Amino acid sequence: MNTAELAELGQQLRVDSVRASAAAGSGHPTSSMSAADLMAVLLAHHLRYDFERPEHPANDRFVLSKGHASPLLYAAYKAAGAVEDGELLTFRKIGSRLEGHPTPRRLPWVETATGSLGQGLPVGVGIALAGKRLERTGYRVWVLCGDSELAEGSVWEAAEHAGYEHLDNLITIVDVNRLGQRGPTRHGHDLDAYARRFQAFGWHTIEIDGHDVDKIDRAYGEALSTAGQPVAILARTLKGKGVAAVEDMEGHHGKPLPDAEGAVAELGGPREVPVRVSEPPAAAALRDVTTEVLQLPRYDEGDQVATRDAFGAALAALGTARGDVVALDGEVGDSTRTEEFAKAHPERFFECYIAEQQLVAAAVGMATRGWLPYASTFAAFLTRAYDFVRMASISGAGVNLVGSHAGVAIGQDGPSQMGLEDLAMFRAVHGSTVLYPCDANQTARLVAAMAGLDGIRYLRTSRGKTPVIYGPGEEFPVGGSKTLVSSEEDRLTVVAAGVTVPEALAAADRLAEDGILVRVIDLYSVKPVDVDTLRRAAEETGCLLTVEDHHAEGGLGDAVAEAFGDGRPVPRLVRLAVRTMPGSAAPDEQLHAAGIDAVGIAAAAKLLVEEAVVR
Amino acid sequence: MNTAELAELGQQLRVDSVRASAAAGSGHPTSSMSAADLMAVLLAHHLRYDFERPEHPANDRFVLSKGHASPLLYAAYKAAGAVEDGELLTFRKIGSRLEGHPTPRRLPWVETATGSLGQGLPVGVGIALAGKRLERTGYRVWVLCGDSELAEGSVWEAAEHAGYEHLDNLITIVDVNRLGQRGPTRHGHDLDAYARRFQAFGWHTIEIDGHDVDKIDRAYGEALSTAGQPVAILARTLKGKGVAAVEDMEGHHGKPLPDAEGAVAELGGPREVPVRVSEPPAAAALRDVTTEVLQLPRYDEGDQVATRDAFGAALAALGTARGDVVALDGEVGDSTRTEEFAKAHPERFFECYIAEQQLVAAAVGMATRGWLPYASTFAAFLTRAYDFVRMASISGAGVNLVGSHAGVAIGQDGPSQMGLEDLAMFRAVHGSTVLYPCDANQTARLVAAMAGLDGIRYLRTSRGKTPVIYGPGEEFPVGGSKTLVSSEEDRLTVVAAGVTVPEALAAADRLAEDGILVRVIDLYSVKPVDVDTLRRAAEETGCLLTVEDHHAEGGLGDAVAEAFGDGRPVPRLVRLAVRTMPGSAAPDEQLHAAGIDAVGIAAAAKLLVEEAVVR
Repeated sequence: MNTAELAELGQQLRVDSVRASAAAGSGHPTSSMSAADLMAVLLAHHLRYDFERPEHPANDRFVLSKGHASPLLYAAYKAAGAVEDGELLTFRKIGSRLEGHPTPRRLPWVETATGSLGQGLPVGVGIALAGKRLERTGYRVWVLCGDSELAEGSVWEAAEHAGYEHLDNLITIVDVNRLGQRGPTRHGHDLDAYARRFQAFGWHTIEIDGHDVDKIDRAYGEALSTAGQPVAILARTLKGKGVAAVEDMEGHHGKPLPDAEGAVAELGGPREVPVRVSEPPAAAALRDVTTEVLQLPRYDEGDQVATRDAFGAALAALGTARGDVVALDGEVGDSTRTEEFAKAHPERFFECYIAEQQLVAAAVGMATRGWLPYASTFAAFLTRAYDFVRMASISGAGVNLVGSHAGVAIGQDGPSQMGLEDLAMFRAVHGSTVLYPCDANQTARLVAAMAGLDGIRYLRTSRGKTPVIYGPGEEFPVGGSKTLVSSEEDRLTVVAAGVTVPEALAAADRLAEDGILVRVIDLYSVKPVDVDTLRRAAEETGCLLTVEDHHAEGGLGDAVAEAFGDGRPVPRLVRLAVRTMPGSAAPDEQLHAAGIDAVGIAAAAKLLVEEAVVR
Repeated sequence: MNTAELAELGQQLRVDSVRASAAAGSGHPTSSMSAADLMAVLLAHHLRYDFERPEHPANDRFVLSKGHASPLLYAAYKAAGAVEDGELLTFRKIGSRLEGHPTPRRLPWVETATGSLGQGLPVGVGIALAGKRLERTGYRVWVLCGDSELAEGSVWEAAEHAGYEHLDNLITIVDVNRLGQRGPTRHGHDLDAYARRFQAFGWHTIEIDGHDVDKIDRAYGEALSTAGQPVAILARTLKGKGVAAVEDMEGHHGKPLPDAEGAVAELGGPREVPVRVSEPPAAAALRDVTTEVLQLPRYDEGDQVATRDAFGAALAALGTARGDVVALDGEVGDSTRTEEFAKAHPERFFECYIAEQQLVAAAVGMATRGWLPYASTFAAFLTRAYDFVRMASISGAGVNLVGSHAGVAIGQDGPSQMGLEDLAMFRAVHGSTVLYPCDANQTARLVAAMAGLDGIRYLRTSRGKTPVIYGPGEEFPVGGSKTLVSSEEDRLTVVAAGVTVPEALAAADRLAEDGILVRVIDLYSVKPVDVDTLRRAAEETGCLLTVEDHHAEGGLGDAVAEAFGDGRPVPRLVRLAVRTMPGSAAPDEQLHAAGIDAVGIAAAAKLLVEEAVVR
């Protein structure tokens, strides 16, 4: 296309952004208009993408990090012939694929859900990493960011990661339109301010007028020919460009234009500029994904093994069996034990350093490319990435997250290192799976089982050694549980998971010595929860005593309560959990202080039985 | 002190770090040893601090961002005469004030809990902001960071914030010891790499040998004389400095030295170098905190007002009544309505731009200085700061967090903007309070009530207008509820909060028309929960139907279940919640699709009653 045609295409994208937002009665046309020329040149001259084959391995990948500019994205889809004009006007209406912020659940051309700012670039880094280190089909990753979102630290985690990994297949276009939601950004149109920052992190930068299509064209060309560095194109633009009533003015964020019809006229009216998006090259390399029979580590009953150790060994074994498994860690692989995977499969291990948002984002990016990521750090530090987990669930991304050092059982390091909110956090995520093994064989099985699930899967591991109580042949279906002790005389049921399982077993022994029989359930699947077994235990014993190394809210106790959330009769429910702020102490002292060790469990059970609170 | 004396003090801090860790059998001596000379010179020559008056308004503030180097901190306290040698050796033992990672709950000289890396600097920025813009007593904020933690994006949010605000009262010392937990950092001893990054964000940088006490001394002097910019001192150090068996070697992170006795001997043995820490200057300015009678906004029953609007107005009023109230926002003040406060009290409003970790960290920093912060953004985006919230609760910091745009009720913007995990997230925080008002007068009262609570307080507000159902004189104690509809014939109880309250009231009307009487409770205090009222409703109606604009896990349903977690008889519990992934749709369509509008509530209640599942 020549200059005039490119400019025309830019105007068309503006017009369609205005029309879609007007039809919806909401949306972000002004944020779309600033980036319209950037998008037009990309679409017409540089993107390599087959809209009919979004799964094509050599397709470029485009991420709209400023997800609120969805009208522009959908206008581009229309220009490329992927979406009809009629559908464009369903924007933001119930049932439409064209949501307020784009999601891959609905649209095959969207790589990842955006709308929480500062996430597109981190996920883009994950995609670019997969392209560079795993796939080598030559695709490029284009990320369109807003300037406001550069205030997010996650952007600089991503910049650091991309610079360090020399991701020259990653091109970030920053639409510097100077205006955020509320008003001016910190740096306004000071492109140099952004350039200095990207350069400091090892990027090549290009500063341009984002409404000069020839300069945009040359900038993209320069970006594509840059070797050894990711590229940031900093484009000076005007929010609402092209419509005098809103151009470069405050107070027009996230609203349809006041006079959409007049605006369309001012923009030259609707047009149908024909765009032919380039085909991707024939895929240079097919993915070489080995498959072998999985040989999980096997542990002997009675041995003392930390579940984190079993996780590390099982992950390495899974990596041997499946060539699509990748592992990522937040610079604590010697603690989480992903170091086992790193030793066995260094080419599929990704060190993300102490940057948990980027850790999860990179996993999400790799998942979009069909890899099966396991990302690990301390359970406590996964809280750092909660917004990324939330957005990953909106994406429908299949990622495995593994949090080690859960609970007060870690001991002396104190509360900053203790995951005590992680079960609550992951349970509340839509469609998630939450697993909490108590022994090594169970851990190994669950690590393998996670691989076949949808959505966000979380595995909670423990620092200290616990006894192996299951044989290596035992199976642990997700959504199941194990009843470890039971009789017809059980007077209550202790529901435990992870480190509280051996404590519950010891408590049952103590209680049996006093003539009090209790049932013990290992609820390793915290979500989904084994409703049938819990209901049977409720009917047969009348009272469920939950014991968890987690705060009282949102964890095991709540999971058990939820099993009775359909109006049926509810058993008596009592929960033991961590209710005070721990300090430093030895692991056994911590469990005792929290009242979740064998002594605490037995005392609570005895009180309930003897005071005839139950039966 | 002369050079030799400073070096001696550095050796003493090393010796005591080694001794404390040896006595504990755990801890981080090598990470302490790298920074010992940096700490020695600070303590002896530059810090202004009265250990007997930690509350002194002109005291400098010291934050150990690399909180695992706690042995060094405690060794410094000992050198300053604040801690005895006997107590030093209680390090990490149960009941000791000297925890694995320092917390202000236990030690009066600790400003904020650290141990989750990348948080000390962001909180330090909050303290420095308070010093510069609010207090003006001339204190300086010293933050000692590790090099590993510079991978955290939160550090660059903080760097951006500090640079933009010209915080020349903030000095960050980076202990560049080249080794993280697992192994080498990304940049090793490349001080320039870090300097470039800080400079890009507007900082003055100084690069030194971190074991040359004279150079350290001069660097601190240069930092103190730098005007208009924060300063980063990048110090090249060796992990485990001074003990050949560990110095600059991998594999010795987070462990006592293999031969502590030999190490102490190699370091020249224990010594008692006398240190006299400088007194702070007489406080230059007393805090001018006005107090007036609080005049909350008043709304007429039947009016339609969004709770976010009431929040904004109430916060502005609270700011007028109390001069210690400060407000912070994540560049969405026009949505959260903190813009009302910003207009009324611009000198106490802090724009944090789109950087939610820094938003919460700045609030925590201000809270350490006795200010009463209200920090606001969309409820969904507070997930970005969960680790900061978690650490704030460990600090015992009193901060108010306000999340707007909760739930599917926001409508067209779609799931990325919907807070659907926030209740779970905040309930799981130790000692937190979680409030969810349904009308404007209730919101105003709760905004005021939050001010007087301890710990983390969360208020959830809504985007759309809801009817004012309470008079302006009504009181809403935290931990209470309001029974809005009740009779002796109630066949079940609908428990609602926020946007589901008007829906529950409408459902009760519909059901009454069918001859089915139901009780309606407004459970505005989600934590603590009104156990008595819920139990009475359970006894009298037999079934509780919870209705929440939140995922089914961790929110209102779990809060209600928890009220019966002591072994007493449990009513039948049924929960209506958001169980699918929403798309774009109008607010009423969203509530309907989730089954939490009046139609859904009435249908569920009718089913329960007619199918005789209840009574």
